Amino acid sequence: MSTKKKAVVLLSGGLDSATVVAIAKDQGFDVHALSFSYGQRHSVELTAADDVAKHLGVVEHKTANLDLRTFGGSALTDDIDVPKDREEETMEEDIPVTYVPARNTIFLSFALAYAEVVGAKDIFIGVNALDYSGYPDCRPEYIEAYQTMARLATKAGVTEEEELHIRTPLLEMSKADIVTVGTKLGVDYAMTISCYDPNDKGEACGHCDSCILRKKGFREAELDDPTRYQA
Amino acid sequence: MSTKKKAVVLLSGGLDSATVVAIAKDQGFDVHALSFSYGQRHSVELTAADDVAKHLGVVEHKTANLDLRTFGGSALTDDIDVPKDREEETMEEDIPVTYVPARNTIFLSFALAYAEVVGAKDIFIGVNALDYSGYPDCRPEYIEAYQTMARLATKAGVTEEEELHIRTPLLEMSKADIVTVGTKLGVDYAMTISCYDPNDKGEACGHCDSCILRKKGFREAELDDPTRYQA
Repeated sequence: MSTKKKAVVLLSGGLDSATVVAIAKDQGFDVHALSFSYGQRHSVELTAADDVAKHLGVVEHKTANLDLRTFGGSALTDDIDVPKDREEETMEEDIPVTYVPARNTIFLSFALAYAEVVGAKDIFIGVNALDYSGYPDCRPEYIEAYQTMARLATKAGVTEEEELHIRTPLLEMSKADIVTVGTKLGVDYAMTISCYDPNDKGEACGHCDSCILRKKGFREAELDDPTRYQA
Repeated sequence: MSTKKKAVVLLSGGLDSATVVAIAKDQGFDVHALSFSYGQRHSVELTAADDVAKHLGVVEHKTANLDLRTFGGSALTDDIDVPKDREEETMEEDIPVTYVPARNTIFLSFALAYAEVVGAKDIFIGVNALDYSGYPDCRPEYIEAYQTMARLATKAGVTEEEELHIRTPLLEMSKADIVTVGTKLGVDYAMTISCYDPNDKGEACGHCDSCILRKKGFREAELDDPTRYQA
């Protein structure tokens, strides 16, 4: 049995969370990856998460079922049109329609349960404060407040080391930084899906906010973009 | 359409949460009740929640599906024996085996999503710090930290009134206080189920920690105990 420290890593199948898995492994953690089947319109995300977990060598990969459509309220779970070909300035103006109410709060809560059961004290999440600031639950002060709450929700550690940590290695990184680090750590970005509106084959639309930011990241990092785009 | 303020109330079908629904209504809120089908061993809880919601007149009652058995780790979802006939001192010694990892954190996170969608700024939860202190996520400092996190997770209010509030009307009440208040507000406790190990008819075992505390509450309040116990 491995004596390495365990971490729970939230894995969506996207570019960011794949990079986080690679970073957690590089930091010496045994990774317990956690994905969600939450009524998202494109299940190709879950296939991508499986591929990434296998490729990067996690010790366990669980997918929790939950139905966020119970409440509605987002373009990622409802039949609202995903905006296309927007300027970056426009994206930053307000909370996007692709925002799922309380999504990170819900995902982290499941990660907390998983961490408690396997005895992990570290939870990794690929939130990013720079590239995309429209989501309130991606802000550093939110993550810090979550950690404070999570420590009170669970059995207390004696030392700081034993206390629960919410780790956000991408928080201050640009998309170019992220793909540069991930490429060095062996992430195969062809497996990952960032697109808000992919086709059934998992090919990206190339025009939603997420595709535009991803393209720009590879361009600025001066790396080939291995993303599979729709013809 | 009602112009009353909306509240989301977590409703398990137990004695405490039924009382909270009555208190929220008494405080002038339109109640949106939220229950969970989370792989609990006894689904009679959900029938009780339905009955209570109808009887007390909520405006909406949703049941969210989620599977906490994905991770295991509790007598309420796994096949671990529920302890019987314990002294109250023994119950308080440690975190009970009936603890579901991160349960309140997960439940509150769904309540937060529901509140955001319906435009409620108040979330009620029937946690209690006095009667049963074994659960870390029932402590007042936990609830306060949750509220701080939840405000950062969502769109900010301009005034204190518009900020999100986690309301815990039972926090400092004894079980006797709770049944006294609920009885005055018209709660029919015969509909509610507190037992950790009820039979298929929804009759209580009378011997688990929860049954023992409930019996004592009615006795101390000098009220008839309408609970349906197994013969």
